Order: sequence, then structure tokens, then C-alpha cells
Amino acid sequence: MRDKPMFNKLALIGIGLIGSSISHVVRREGLVGSIAVSTRSDQTLARAEVLGLGDHYTTNAADAVVDADLIIHCAPVGAGAAIAEQIAPALKPGAIVTDVGSVKASVIAQMKPHMPKGVHFIAGHPVAGTEYSGPDAGFASLFENHWVILTPEDDVDETALDTLKQFWQACGANVDVMEASHHDLVLAITSHIPQLISYNIVDTAANLESVTQSEVMKYSAGGFRDFTRLASSDPTMWRDIYLHNKDAVLETLGRFSEDLTAMQRAIRWGDGDALFKIFTRTRQIRKDIIAVGQETDSPNFGRNEPLE
Amino acid sequence: MRDKPMFNKLALIGIGLIGSSISHVVRREGLVGSIAVSTRSDQTLARAEVLGLGDHYTTNAADAVVDADLIIHCAPVGAGAAIAEQIAPALKPGAIVTDVGSVKASVIAQMKPHMPKGVHFIAGHPVAGTEYSGPDAGFASLFENHWVILTPEDDVDETALDTLKQFWQACGANVDVMEASHHDLVLAITSHIPQLISYNIVDTAANLESVTQSEVMKYSAGGFRDFTRLASSDPTMWRDIYLHNKDAVLETLGRFSEDLTAMQRAIRWGDGDALFKIFTRTRQIRKDIIAVGQETDSPNFGRNEPLE
Repeated sequence: MRDKPMFNKLALIGIGLIGSSISHVVRREGLVGSIAVSTRSDQTLARAEVLGLGDHYTTNAADAVVDADLIIHCAPVGAGAAIAEQIAPALKPGAIVTDVGSVKASVIAQMKPHMPKGVHFIAGHPVAGTEYSGPDAGFASLFENHWVILTPEDDVDETALDTLKQFWQACGANVDVMEASHHDLVLAITSHIPQLISYNIVDTAANLESVTQSEVMKYSAGGFRDFTRLASSDPTMWRDIYLHNKDAVLETLGRFSEDLTAMQRAIRWGDGDALFKIFTRTRQIRKDIIAVGQETDSPNFGRNEPLE
Repeated sequence: MRDKPMFNKLALIGIGLIGSSISHVVRREGLVGSIAVSTRSDQTLARAEVLGLGDHYTTNAADAVVDADLIIHCAPVGAGAAIAEQIAPALKPGAIVTDVGSVKASVIAQMKPHMPKGVHFIAGHPVAGTEYSGPDAGFASLFENHWVILTPEDDVDETALDTLKQFWQACGANVDVMEASHHDLVLAITSHIPQLISYNIVDTAANLESVTQSEVMKYSAGGFRDFTRLASSDPTMWRDIYLHNKDAVLETLGRFSEDLTAMQRAIRWGDGDALFKIFTRTRQIRKDIIAVGQETDSPNFGRNEPLE
């Protein structure tokens, strides 16, 4: 706990996994004086109140941002324009507005035009999460040792940018700064395509006539079960990501499909050497990810097996 | 520990993750009188001896099977024919010969023609594993609560089949019996295709010019890191699986690619409803897998985060 909070008032627009995790960590670290929680859903808002995630609760985002020094859009990326339009008239001069979405160019295009003069808009993305969603899913250590990417534009106020960096560092994260278009490409390969092929393999398995669902489940330890984790993530959030990062996703998916076709051809023609070569070079990458502290070296992710 | 072992002598041909795990569990449960360990590699054999995985050690599989009641081929599936040919003259009448490979029709075709009269050949596959390989990777609880699939043919000796079932149950596994061709189709979707697309996404990411390897690693918590687990599995084992389950893999891969193309088209045309529908139905499958005890419900597989 610090002597003095970094911000007098934080407004969280959206209170799912990320919003609720921010609430937990800023409380633990004493980073803000008070938290206003806003969400369009009465039910979610009521749940957030039961969990004590804020000090004020409202379904009206404009009410939440009054007097707030830091406003974080934690709703699906497709909601950016509507939220920006709604909150703009109520924003305090000097306030910092940011977001947590997995797409940055679209969020900037949606929100920045609405921002009043004197308000600092800086798009951001904490690269952390779980397969669970909603206000119950959050926890204070979610961002710890993970990376937050900020994508300020050329006209950014450097003091505001420094303040936002310090905020995320105080939440336990490392901070990187890059261009929005580059972020969207990097996340396409590190997140959006992995997620898409997880959804796809799970859906393909669900629709096979020749293999029963019971068989898919019983023998899922052969590898399939790993993919069901990502494929159980929030559908609205992910729909919005694909709709708003279309170009980078399609470009990267094209590369994935091209490589997959080459692998398919190697299998068809019995080219074991080509397969062996690929399977050998992919081995190293996990070791590197473990070395940079982004993955566990425990077998099977440290799943406690046998399962109950 | 039981009073009396089920088998006087077990021969393990191959001593990687599965072979060493069998050694650990049969010792813990007192299932065999002695274990002969055989592998072609001097280095692996020496390591197995240091680990104390057997009672006899040899690079000659024929020597290992002399007087053995149970022989388990734990080498890559491509080695089946050579091993069968080599051990056939030394097999004891009444012995049970089985294997642990992820492909069954090919292993039967490779091994069964070599089996002498009076020897019981029953192909099998424990659906369990980790991303680690080699004699150090094994542990006694690997098979616990997971499924072993046996694929006997019509002429199987029912007593031998029952004995083999009891053996795997004594190792902690559940046992299913099905036709080899069906096994190969089921495993294509639950294991071989998930594995293939893991290798593929990791390789695609490694070859992008526009995104650095450092970026891929730092932001891998966005989903990518999950795939690196499977993609760090043993290259020889997996090369053999694709070469020996070609038809089922190509058929299932065709379905996967067809579904992926449909998803790609939905993204290109901005069809959010189609995406939302797929992302919603895939959510349930993980819940079902957790319900049948084949997966953990801990967020992120129970990875202990923050990582050191």
C-alpha cells in the first residue's frame, strides 16, 4: 500500500475478467481513492456490487466518469465508439482515458474522435487472461509478470503516458509501447489465430458423424483438451476482436493455412524428413518462452493429475 | 502391492516417457517379477540403468523377450515391423505382445504377421502423456484416470485379452475395446490433428518476418503459449504417427480446413452472428470434458502464475 493513491477516482466501464481484476489489484495496492463501476447489464452490475468491486455503481457510463482521473474501457472492443460518445461530455479535463482491448487501431478510430480537448486518450492492452469471464473471474495477480502494450499516437502527452505506464507497473505488469498497427499484427499471431483455430478444432470435433461426443471427451487427453480452454472463452469479446482486426487476422490466417497445406502435402507424400525438420525446430520455442518467464516448465502445464 | 505378480517377466522394448512410466507403476503395484529393458540407443539404455528402470538391460530386443510373459513395444510406431521380426523367434509360447502406439491399424499390420503361433498379439494405446520424452520423463501416476484403448482382432484369445485389461486397470487406467480403424479415426481428431495444428501455428509464428521472436515470446500469454506445449513433443514419435495414420489424418484435416475456411469467410464478410454462434457452442465442450474427469477446471490449467 502506498501513502497516497495515484488517482482520486477510477471509472471502470465494463466489469468482466479484466475490469474486476483491475479492481482487485488497485485496491490491494492502494492505487485509487475510489472506483466507479459501470456496465450496461443490470445483472452484472448487481453481481459486481455483491462482490464489492466498486464504491459507486451505475448502468450509465457518463455518470461513472464524472470527476474520474482514470477511465478504463473494459467492455468488448466493438463497444468503443458508443462508450466514447456517451462519456465524452462528462469527462474531466486532464483525465486519462484508456482501454484493455486486444485490438488497438480500431479502438483508437472508434474512440479518439470523440475525446474532448484536454483529455488524454491512450489505447492499451494487458496481454493476460484466463478462459473465464464476468465479474467473478477477476483476481489481483492477473497482470503480474505479464506485458501491457500501450499504443499512443504521435500527439500523446508524455506526462500522461508516463502516468499510465506507472499505473500498470504498479499493477505488477511490464509495459511496452508500440504502434497500434504493429500491435494488431503481433496479437494476430500470438493470440487471435491461436484462439481461432482452437474454436475451429473444437467445432470440427463436435460435428463429426463418425466419432461420438463421448469419445471426444474420454480421449481428449491425447491433446484435444488443451484447445478447449481457449475455445471456452467469452464469445462476444472474441466476435468483436475478429470483426475489428480483420486485415491482420486474414493475413496471418493466410500464412497459417499455407503452412498447413505444405504439412498436409508432406503427410500425403510420406515426406517424413520434412515433418521431422518442422517438429524439431518448434521444440525450441517453448524452451525460450519458459526462459523469458511467460510459461511454466511443469509437465502438462502443471495440471494436477490424476484429476478428481 | 499384491501378493503375487501378474507376470513373472515384463519386457519393455523402448524406454521413453511411456516405457519408463510403465516401469514405475508396475514396480509400485508389484505387477511383475522382473523387468527387461531394451532400447537401440546405448545412451538411453545407460540412462535407464542409472534410473533403475529395469532388472536387465540390453540393446538387443530378442534377448529382452526371452522368458517374458508380457512384451510391450514402447518405441515409435514406425519401428513395429523391425521389432516384431527381431523378437519373434525368441518369444515364449503363451506370451502376450502389445504396444502403446497412437496408431493401431498400421501397428497390427506391421507386427501381427511375424507373431508365432501360441503368442497373443493385442495392440493397445494408453491415451496419456506429457510434452516431455525419454527415460527421465516417466512417472507412476501417468495412466491414472486416463483411458487405454485395446484393439484386438476377431481371433483374439479372450483370456489373454482379459489379462491385458486387468494389467492396465492395475496401472490405474480405464480400458476400452474398439476396432483398430475406429481408434485411428478417433485419435486423428482427439490427438493427431490438434498436435499437427500446434506444430503448424508455432512454425508459422517462427517464420513471420513482420513479428520478432522476442515479441512472440513476450506476448505468448495471449494464447500462443498453450500450443507450444504440444509442439515441443518428441519429433520422431510424431513423424511416425503421421506417416502411419495418413488416411484418417488427411480425412480429418480436410474437415478442419473446410471449417476454417468457413470461419475465414465469416470474418472477411463481417458475419458476427455466424462467429458468435460457433464460439458459443464450443464453450460447452470443455465443461463436458471437465465433468467426465479428463480436465481441470482451474483457470489456465492451474498454471501457477505469476511465474518465477
